[in-house]
This record gives sequence, structure tokens and C-alpha cells, in this order.
Amino acid sequence: MSTAQPTWAPPTRQTEEPVLKVYNSLTRSKVEFIPRSGRHVKWYNCGPTVYDASHMGHARNYVTQDILRRIMTDYFGYDVHFVMNITDIEDKIILRARQNYLFNDYLSRATTLSSTLIGEVRDAWSAYLQSRVNKGLPEGFRADGPSDPAWFARVLEHAKDNQWRSECLKRDEKFTMHLNAAVRLPSQRICLERSFSALSEASKQLADGQTGQQYAHALVQASADVLAEWLDKQFKTTVSDHSIFRALSSYWETRFFEDMARLRVREPDTVTRVTEYVPEIVSYVQRIIENGYAYEVDGSVYFDTRTFDDADGHFYAKLEPWSKGNQKLIEEGEGALTDSLGRRSPSDFALWKASKPGEPEWPSPWGAGRPGWHIECSVMATAILGDNIDIHSGGIDLAFPHHDNEMAQSEAFHDHGPWVNYFLHTGHLHIEGLKMSKSLKNFITIDEILQKYSARQLRLAFLTQQWNAKMDFSESLMTGEVKNIETAFNNFFSVVKALITDPDRLKNDGHHRYGDAEQELIKHLHESQANFRAALCDSFNTPAAMDMLRSLVSRTNVYINSRGSEMNVKVIEYVAKWVGKMLRIFGLGEGESSEIGWGQDLGKGAAAVNREEILMPYLRTLSSFRDGVRKLAIAKGDNALKDILALCDKLRDIDLVPLGVALDDQDDGKALVKIVPPEELVQAREEKRKQAEAKAAKKAAQVEAERQKRLQKLEKGRVPPQEMFKPPNVKEGEYGSWDEQGLPLTDGQGKELSKNKAKKNLQLWEQQKDLHEKYLAWKRERSG
Amino acid sequence: MSTAQPTWAPPTRQTEEPVLKVYNSLTRSKVEFIPRSGRHVKWYNCGPTVYDASHMGHARNYVTQDILRRIMTDYFGYDVHFVMNITDIEDKIILRARQNYLFNDYLSRATTLSSTLIGEVRDAWSAYLQSRVNKGLPEGFRADGPSDPAWFARVLEHAKDNQWRSECLKRDEKFTMHLNAAVRLPSQRICLERSFSALSEASKQLADGQTGQQYAHALVQASADVLAEWLDKQFKTTVSDHSIFRALSSYWETRFFEDMARLRVREPDTVTRVTEYVPEIVSYVQRIIENGYAYEVDGSVYFDTRTFDDADGHFYAKLEPWSKGNQKLIEEGEGALTDSLGRRSPSDFALWKASKPGEPEWPSPWGAGRPGWHIECSVMATAILGDNIDIHSGGIDLAFPHHDNEMAQSEAFHDHGPWVNYFLHTGHLHIEGLKMSKSLKNFITIDEILQKYSARQLRLAFLTQQWNAKMDFSESLMTGEVKNIETAFNNFFSVVKALITDPDRLKNDGHHRYGDAEQELIKHLHESQANFRAALCDSFNTPAAMDMLRSLVSRTNVYINSRGSEMNVKVIEYVAKWVGKMLRIFGLGEGESSEIGWGQDLGKGAAAVNREEILMPYLRTLSSFRDGVRKLAIAKGDNALKDILALCDKLRDIDLVPLGVALDDQDDGKALVKIVPPEELVQAREEKRKQAEAKAAKKAAQVEAERQKRLQKLEKGRVPPQEMFKPPNVKEGEYGSWDEQGLPLTDGQGKELSKNKAKKNLQLWEQQKDLHEKYLAWKRERSG
Repeated sequence: MSTAQPTWAPPTRQTEEPVLKVYNSLTRSKVEFIPRSGRHVKWYNCGPTVYDASHMGHARNYVTQDILRRIMTDYFGYDVHFVMNITDIEDKIILRARQNYLFNDYLSRATTLSSTLIGEVRDAWSAYLQSRVNKGLPEGFRADGPSDPAWFARVLEHAKDNQWRSECLKRDEKFTMHLNAAVRLPSQRICLERSFSALSEASKQLADGQTGQQYAHALVQASADVLAEWLDKQFKTTVSDHSIFRALSSYWETRFFEDMARLRVREPDTVTRVTEYVPEIVSYVQRIIENGYAYEVDGSVYFDTRTFDDADGHFYAKLEPWSKGNQKLIEEGEGALTDSLGRRSPSDFALWKASKPGEPEWPSPWGAGRPGWHIECSVMATAILGDNIDIHSGGIDLAFPHHDNEMAQSEAFHDHGPWVNYFLHTGHLHIEGLKMSKSLKNFITIDEILQKYSARQLRLAFLTQQWNAKMDFSESLMTGEVKNIETAFNNFFSVVKALITDPDRLKNDGHHRYGDAEQELIKHLHESQANFRAALCDSFNTPAAMDMLRSLVSRTNVYINSRGSEMNVKVIEYVAKWVGKMLRIFGLGEGESSEIGWGQDLGKGAAAVNREEILMPYLRTLSSFRDGVRKLAIAKGDNALKDILALCDKLRDIDLVPLGVALDDQDDGKALVKIVPPEELVQAREEKRKQAEAKAAKKAAQVEAERQKRLQKLEKGRVPPQEMFKPPNVKEGEYGSWDEQGLPLTDGQGKELSKNKAKKNLQLWEQQKDLHEKYLAWKRERSG
Repeated sequence: MSTAQPTWAPPTRQTEEPVLKVYNSLTRSKVEFIPRSGRHVKWYNCGPTVYDASHMGHARNYVTQDILRRIMTDYFGYDVHFVMNITDIEDKIILRARQNYLFNDYLSRATTLSSTLIGEVRDAWSAYLQSRVNKGLPEGFRADGPSDPAWFARVLEHAKDNQWRSECLKRDEKFTMHLNAAVRLPSQRICLERSFSALSEASKQLADGQTGQQYAHALVQASADVLAEWLDKQFKTTVSDHSIFRALSSYWETRFFEDMARLRVREPDTVTRVTEYVPEIVSYVQRIIENGYAYEVDGSVYFDTRTFDDADGHFYAKLEPWSKGNQKLIEEGEGALTDSLGRRSPSDFALWKASKPGEPEWPSPWGAGRPGWHIECSVMATAILGDNIDIHSGGIDLAFPHHDNEMAQSEAFHDHGPWVNYFLHTGHLHIEGLKMSKSLKNFITIDEILQKYSARQLRLAFLTQQWNAKMDFSESLMTGEVKNIETAFNNFFSVVKALITDPDRLKNDGHHRYGDAEQELIKHLHESQANFRAALCDSFNTPAAMDMLRSLVSRTNVYINSRGSEMNVKVIEYVAKWVGKMLRIFGLGEGESSEIGWGQDLGKGAAAVNREEILMPYLRTLSSFRDGVRKLAIAKGDNALKDILALCDKLRDIDLVPLGVALDDQDDGKALVKIVPPEELVQAREEKRKQAEAKAAKKAAQVEAERQKRLQKLEKGRVPPQEMFKPPNVKEGEYGSWDEQGLPLTDGQGKELSKNKAKKNLQLWEQQKDLHEKYLAWKRERSG
């Protein structure tokens, strides 16, 4: 017998692995995904322009990208470097920040309701309406605006004409929205009427002499939109401090990431902010000029699209060559504050914009200015990822001109191409069949949608759609398909968990055999795994992948129902673990990957029970530290320690309230620690404040009443006793003569007073003497 | 301008993906891993024979396989079907179960201490010793056993001879263990003496009429091992009920899976039990006979190794052809209850064993019998995975004959090969350089080791070794390398968490730029990712992969320490998330993959992950309250506030330590809040305390030295100046006469002193006067 091992031959593949293909906007087809360097993937994603609340369009875009990213890292095992920018300087941000700032400034100065103020609001209204609606109105409707109260009624009447409304829409979305709302939902007419009412109310108030700050503020706030625009027109050049713009973008950036966290969108690996990259942008632009693809005009620098397009090895607008020269798209891309005068071609776009007064500015060789919108992505993506990017992604609305310009810039800078290998564009989102817009009243913020559906339900909705297709988000999708999917998985997982943990079944012998039914189910599982992989390889076909999971679950349910006590629980467990793992890969739940089910529930604050257990030891430590500090501070009794006690109070009354911790200070100096819903605490604090105020008011009223009483009493003593029986203190003719003390001797008829009467008068006299002395003493006190 | 997209060319790979290679025992080299069907991997792993507690050898084997499986599924993304058998019928199980059963039966019947009972125990002892030790003893030592008390002493004396002991070892490990223990560790002599003592004690008790059940049970239980064997010999044929065997294996199977769960070894996808596959085994054997590779002898069926080896396309013992014919290994494989008479070749092995009375039996065409050991794996693996398996794994000690026989059987059954494409064998485990064995007293159960180390620490130990290499498990490995690794990652994660959640840093603008230091760190991260992948592709080289993670952590620490307030926290977060994810892939922790750190701690109860998220806002509130109190107290500079500062210190150094919260007071008065394992904090505090003690001791020693110096100086002044020149302060006869101040006038000879000498003495006298006054002052002070 031989003692050497026999020759080993590598196994023959019977089925090849499927290859990942992605829908590439650069080819408008599915092509094999080939990263340049091993399994390292350079990925740049266009982030938000932060100037307002994120909405459903953002949700669809960022959740969908998150799904693709999770599939790439957690399913396909790529080492992905996911980079995203934050656009924190842009025309929209400038405008919004400046208007907010000017409006708040105006508001703070509006301390009195005056005819000037009313006049200014009326001017603002006129300017607002004249610039928009008048143009769309037939001759007869043209007016100076709201000075004529009948004007509004006529406009409303006219606005019932759909054609006219859609004309208006083209001109100004916001005002049209008001009109629409007023026409279609009479209850909402208030939106527009608010300012009118405020104006006429203010006139009345002024006439009545009600000129307090509250009246002024009511008018100004009711007219915020019109005033902001009017103020900006007049005073924009006075605004230049960078911190004004930064404050707005910083606020909305924070809100954006909060929204993303609630949607369980993973944070990017790298985040870049435009304002932190201005010097790099300047050098980048300079190099493009040096390479001959840009030129300066009056302090602005423009990209020379024609020169670039004509150059060997370059091509302008690779994504949407058919959109070249589309002025509407181009001007939208250039921004509301930019006129782009002096461009050599209408397709050229700004790399650097000379800043006008009222716009933030940075130094540059071409004078003070600010970056164009497109250049930021080129610069930051190059800074982080270099001269070639595997994947660039963003919403489809960014394809032209933003992404085409970005590519042109970067290829002009590096003077070679291609800069991006795969462009992935997420599809549009419609709401109930219509484009989402404020004017259609179907504009939904992420905050609003999360009141209605969980993050998991939203993600399920997105998973049922091909990532790059247009999606219609509708009530029926959510309450129908999505609800069904969620329920099917929930039911399945709870049945499996129950079976697995059933102690009878665990002890039961004889259920480890794999008969035909088990073999078949396992075979179906393996086929599902292969098909699932094939679906994800087919440009991340999540709808097909979800269907496979659902059908596997159905088959398994059939197995469960048909096998009864003969069931092999391990087979079901095997299926359930894989299904759960795949759902978690899609970001639908968290937890250890061998767990059954979704894992940790999304967004609904898991483990509420344990929370208290976890927190309590820490809170007790905190509280007894505070007890100790208070005790020492009180014992010292030193006035200087008051601020330490104030800190203790602040901890209880301010800091711990939003955290839902109540510290009840007891007489023995030890606070009782309670965990309660924060809203309850806020409410309790509010009530306490109100009670304290009521008590204080009552006390103040009492004090006042006593003071009045005392004053009345003192007042009684104002008359000296010598004068008390003389007119005007008694009726003319009541008495005829008096002694030197002023005591009456005779009545009006000269008749001597009765002894009784005289005695009574003497008593009164003595009383008055006493009162008068007190009165005199009080007067001395007051003057002294 | 063109309106068609330009031609797109697929990117050119600059670096190819590394290819997974595995060390295949079938080639004894690393070969590319090629699954037969897409990314589906059929994996069969040899499970335990369940008759006793699992030990460190099992831990190493199953944890290591778990690591390989996790890498395959969670890192490389294969759809792995992991199948494992439970050997619940085998000679060891039969023997143990029968003996346990007979012993318990005997125990339950031993209700009275009687001379019969004592006689039976003595008989059992005689039989036990005669069957083993006598053969190894020289003539003079042979005896009827323990009837002669001096015999035991003589055996012990003899047993000191190593050669003799190793002879014994070959015959019976257990008895030799007793002997060894008795010889080497006199304190353990009790193991063997227990039964002797019980015997003589029982004789006394019987004489005293103490015949109650408790006395009978004490004797029987003290002699369990010897009785079980003696009972088995006599009564084994009475035991036939399957449930007796099943009860034992079921008990140990449950314990095994409990141990695995504690080690965080994932459950197999499919578990098979031999007893549930007997009909399949019978048909399988029948087919092998039909195929001409097996023959029946007296109701047993043997595999015909020579016919198989000679057949075209077959090869016997592919794994270890050099072990063919190794009778020791072959007989071990056949089992203690099997004699294998009538085999055609000594290399042939049993597929089916005719059951003797006292052995469980199933019907078959060859009469009542039971399966051989090797056949079970062939049958069950075939039943679940079919005629070809991608990976077969097990401990290296199973390679021959078990795995070689398994392959031969399966290839004989399917009548084609190969049945297994990749054979992965985990390496041996040694303890402190020696093979683990009960006789060497270094036998450690999983239960015991988990008292000492956490599952994470054990797994780290296994990860630092190549999976297929021999491993030495030692105290120094655990307290040295493993502890260092764990601490390095713990420290890193707690620093990163503190930095990420530091609210000051979050609000800080201007730290999103990527300068040279950041670029370099990110570059290092990406290189680490590529190298990590290359290491795992190089036959799962986890030691190298772990080194890469550690070195990346070191680099990141350097970045953190060098960048200070210029730090870009996002870069650190990016590194930490990836490192944590890789550690979790190795099974070192659980939790959402984008989390920082290990995730949920192993074995320490759930939701450690969320814990931090829950706690942090509260801890920050606590910490900033303390910051505020400290600031005020320090600002007051009042001595009276010292105890408030002491409270602040106590909170940090005492109260928060067991809660695992570290407050690092910074120069700016704001403490950095970190959540760390309490034991680390306790240790740090202990070290700090020791340092402080050492410092205090040093200071005390200094003070004491100064005190001594001062005392010496004072001591010099004890003698009044009047006495200083008189004996005994000077030699007798030095001077002859003195003035009233005690100043010498003449020397011993009565000769007047020289002027010079007198002057010198006066100086000394004045010095002493001064010293003496100081001395007196000190004395007054002390008595006063």
C-alpha cells in the first residue's frame, strides 16, 4: 500500500457565482461592477444643502443609498469608504439666513404698534403681491394690493379657475399654495387671511390706543413671509457676518443627522463641509484655469464648457448630453442670487462667484467671493478619494447639471478621465401619484412621516421598489403591501420563537431526522439563497429579493402546518436565522446575526424595562452626591454658598427634567429618585410654576387689600378733631357754635346740645384725635 | 454638441482581489477554495461523542471551527450549510451508561450494611486490582488485593518507579492516575485510600450494629468505580433497554450545547443524531456490500480496505496513507467492546457490529446489531449533503482512521470520488507544554476554564494561534498576550467613545477637514483592510489579522495623542467602527455592526451595547453638575469648601468606580466621561493608592530622618556647658581645675592652660551654652 497521498484535483464548479452588476447612469444599463483596487470601494454621495427640514424625498434618497451601502458592505463584503458632503454655503442658505436674521432684528425692534409699523407691513404686502400675483391677474384685478379689502375676495373667486392657478404655480409656488389652500379648503383660508386680519386688527388697536409690544409682535409675526422678503430687498447689504449663515446651516445639519439616525441610516464614514474647504476650492479653480478650462469675468470664474467639450479625451455632460443648453436646469443650478453675466456660453457655469454685499465672502485671486455649487463636490471628493472614484451617488434630479458639471470640473482639474466609474442615481419620489410639493399640500417632512409609520415600515416601502425607479409613496402601499409584509414576518418569527423555546419539544427525542419534507424545505432554502444572491447581483433588485424571503417564509409555514408533531424544529430555525440575517442586512433591524427575528426593534425605544434597572444605580449615585453637596452648603449657612444651592436646584428643575428624572427633596436632606416620562415632569414643573404664581398673586392681592384697609383707616384721621364737627365735615347748619377744641356747643338752631349728645360727640372727638395723631405720624414717616 | 452618451469602458483593476486559500489535509498544503455550487458551501463537522463533560480540547476545536465558519459566512459572505452530528451510540457510551445504571441499581438496593455487602465490595476491589495492577507488579507484590492492608503501602512504594508507572499507563489511565496522584501529591492519596477507609470503617460499623442505609450508601459510594466495573462484568447482559443509553447521551448532549453557548459557538444549522439514523445506516451498509466493498462475518459487517484500495478510481486512507495498518490507531477506532474477529485484513473496520447481550441493538439483515463508529458520519453527511461535500472538518486526532474510513465508506457507497473536497483539521491543544490528560492533572473542563477566563479571552487565545497548528494553552499566554490584547482594545474603544460623545467636540466647527495626519491615518486604515483580507485569504491567518488590528489601533492612538484639539473625531470613529466590526466577525462580541467596540459583552448579560447609549446623557449631566460644583468651590477658595471638593473626589474615586464610570478631570475644569469595565477602574485606583502610599511612606521617612537629625542636634545640648569639660564628658584627668562656669583652668597636671586653648574652650563653651538652651527649651515644650 502506498504511503503518499493521492493526487488532489481542484473541484469543478457546477454553478458559477453570479457577478454583481449595477445600473450605471453613465451607460444607462446594467454593467459589471469592477472596483479598481481589490475589494476597496471609493464611494462619494451627494449630501444635503442644509437650510430647511428634511422631507420624504430625502428619506427615499438616503434610506435607499443606505440599503445599497449595507448590501455592498454586509452582504457582498466590500470594504467601502462612504464619503458625504454637507453643502453649508449656497444661495438658498444665504437667502434664508439673511431673511431670518433681518426679520428677527425687525421683530425685536417692533416694540410699539405705530402707524409707521402698519404702513411698513402694508408696503411689504404690496411689494410681495405686486411682484407676483398682479402679473397673473386679468387687467381688472390688478390693484395696489390689500389696501382694497374687496380685492382679496375677487382674487379668491378668480383662483377657482384651475388654468389660472397652474399659471400662477409656474411663477410662485408659495403664494399659489396659499391661494389653492384658500380655494380648496375654506377652513385653511386663514393662511392667507391671517396677515389681512392682522393688518385690520392692528389699525383698530392703534385707534384704541393699544400700542403695546404684544400688538406690534402679533402684526409682524402674522406677516413674516412678506416682511422677510421686503426687508431683505432693502437691508441685505448690511448682513455680512459669517456666523449668521453658519448658525442656520449648523442647525439644519444637526436636524438632518438626527432624522437620518431615526431612519437608521448609517453615518457616512467621512463627512466634509464646504465652509471648511474654501482654500482647497480656490486652488482647485486656479488649476482648472491653468489647464485652460475656465476663465474669470468681473471676479467670478466660469467653466468653459465648449473648450472642454472640444478637447481631446474630454466630453461635457456624460450623464445627460441631451440636457446640454437646457437653460431652465442650468439657471436652477446656478442659484437665485447669481446672474452669471458675462459667460462666454449659456452652458458655462460658475466655479467661483464674486460676492455681492450681503453675501458671505472668502479671499481669492479674483477678489472676495464664494464657491459655486458644483465645485465643492469635485474638490472634497478629490481631497478624500483622489483622481478616481468607484461609485458616485445621488438623487436623479442631480444628474444634470450638478453631476455632469462635477465630472467636467474634476476631469478638467486632473486633465484625464474618467473621474467616476459608476454613477448610481436614486429615483424620484411621488406622493399619491403626484410630485411632492408644498403647493400640492402633499409635502411631508421626515418628522411628520415618523409620527405615522415606523422607520422599519418606511424602509420596507423603499425595499419593495427598485432603487433607481420612480416610486409612488401612497397610503395604500403602506397600509397594504408594507403592512402585509411586516405582519407576515412578524407572525413567522413569533411562531418560530415559540417552537424553539417550547420545552417539551426541546426534550423530545426523535426529531433530528431529515425526511423528505425536511430535505425539500432545506433545498428550497438553498435555492432561495442562490436566487436572493442573483437578485442582489442584478443591480440590487431588492423587490425580487424581498419576494424570495416572503415566499420562503410561506413555504416554511406550510411545512410547519403540515408536519405537526413530526416537525424538525432545527430546519425551521435554520430558515428563520437566515431570513432574519438578510432582513438585518437591509437595515430592518439590529442584533446578533444568529438571532431569530428582526433583532432590536427600530425606533420604538427597546428594552424600556431594563432601562430603569440600568439607570438606577447611576442616578442614585448622582442624587446622593447632590445630597452631600447640599447638606454641606446648607450647614455652612454662608451666603456665598447660595450659588452652589442654586446649581443643585438647577440640576433638579432644569437639567434632569428632559431626561425624565425627578428628584424629590425630602426633609431629611435626601432626595427621592424617580424615573418618569419627561413630558410629565415638564407638565408638573409648569403646574408648580403656575401654582406658585397663583399663590404669589393671591398674597399680593391680600397685601394690597390690607394696605388699602390701612390707608382707609388712616384716611379717616386726615381731619383734625378740632375740624370734625365743622363743615364740610358735617352738614352746613348742623351745629351753631363750638368751643376752642371744636366741640359743638349748640345745634344749627342755636339750641344747646343734650348732655347725651355732647357726651357722644366727645367720645367721637377723642377717637378722631387718636386717628389724626396716627395720620400725622404716617405723614411724617412718608415725608421723612 | 452630441446628445448621445460617450462610450463607457469598464474600469481596469489596479489590484486584484486576493483569492481564499485553505490548508487542505488532503494535500497538506494551501489550495484555492472552490465551492462546487456558486457561493453555497456544504460543510460537515464531526461532533462530540456525548458521554462525559467537555474539556479544553473540545473548546479549542469547536471555538476554532466557529471562527472559521464565522469568517466564511460573515466576512467572505458564503451561504454556508453547517452540519454536525452527535454520536449518541458508541462503545464508550454503552459502557458508561451500563455501569452507571447497574451501580445506581445496586446503590438503591443497598439499604442495609451487611457482611454480604462488605464482602461484595471487597470482591469488587480484588477483581479491579487483579485485572490491572497485579500484572504490572513484580512477583512478590501480587496479592489478592486489599485484604492485606500492607499491600497498598508496598504498591505505593513501587509506584515511585517512573518506568513502572508508564507501563501501567498503557494499561489503564484511570488507575495510573490514582497511583500517580498518590505518589506525587500525597495530599491526594485520599482518592485511592477512600475505599480502603470506607471498607475498614464499614467493618467497625457492622460490629457496632450500625447497619442503617446511610452506612451502606457511604461504603457503596466510596467504591463507585470498582463496583461499577465489577457489576458490569456480572450483570451487563441484563441491560438492554435503549432508554438507559439514551438518558446518558441526552444528558451530556445538553451539557455540550450549554458549554458551546457559553463559549459563543454558533449552533450548527443542522444537527443529526446517530440513533435517529439507524435504518439509513443499514441500507447504506447494504449498498456498500452490494458494491463489493464490504463483507459479513457472524452478524458483523466489515469494510474491505484491500479490495477498495485496489479498485480503479479508489484509494484507501487519502489523509494518512502512512497510518494504514497502524493497529493501535485502528483498535482505538474500533472501540473497547469490539473484538473484530474474523476480519480479512487487520486494516478492515466494522461498519456494523453484532450486538452482544448488554448492548443496544437494532434489527438488520445480518441480525441484531449496532452501527460502527465511522459509518454514522458517512450516512448522515450523505443524507443531508449528498454525494459531495465542500468542507469536512474535525480535530486532527480524527484524521486516521475515522476520517479516512469515512471517506472510504462514502466513496464505496457512491462508487465515485472524491466525497470531500477540503478537509480542515484543527490542531492539538497542549496545556503548559504537555498533552492534556487526567493522569497529568492538567485536564480542564470548559466549566472550570470559564470560572477563570471569559469566553472572549479564550477566543482571543485561540485567535492568536493558527487554527491548524498545535497550540500551547498556558497561564502566561492568558495573563500576558491575551490580557494585553483585550486591554489595548478596551482602552481604545473607551477613549473613542468618550471623544465621540463629548458634546463640546460635537458642537465644535472646523474639524471636518482632512489634513495630512488624517489622510495618512485613513490610508493606513485602507491598507489594514487590504492586509486583513489577505491574511484571512491566506488560510484564515487570524494571528496575522489580529496583529493588523492591533497595529492599526496603535497608530490611531498616536494620532489621537498627537493631534489634541485639532483632532478629526470622524476619522477615529471610522477606524473604530471597522475594528469593532472585524472583532465581532471573529465572534468576540455581538451587536449592530456599525457600533463602536466589541458590542454586547460575552456572557455578561444582554444589552451591554445599548447600555452606554442609555447612560451617557445622564452621566454627562452628572459630570457637568460636578464640574459646576467644583468650579464654584475652587473659585471661592474658601477653606470651608474643602469638604465639598472632597465629595467631588469621592464621587470620582469611590462611588463611580464600581459602576464603571471614569471621570478624567481636565485642566479646563471639565471632566471627560468614560464608561469602562469596573475591574479596570478598581485596578487603576489600586495602583494610584499604592503610588500615593509609597509617596506618603517616602515623605514620612524623610520627616522621620529630619526629626532624628534634629534630635541628635538637640541631644548634643543635653550636657550643660558647666559640665562639658568635666568627666564623664571629657577623659578623667584631662583637666585639673575649673572656674565657677566650669571652664577649665588647669590641665590634668595642674598646669595652666595656654591662652589659645582657653580661648578655644571658651568658644566651645559658648556654643554648648547655646545648644543647651535650645535643649532646655525643647524639654520645657515637651513637658508643657
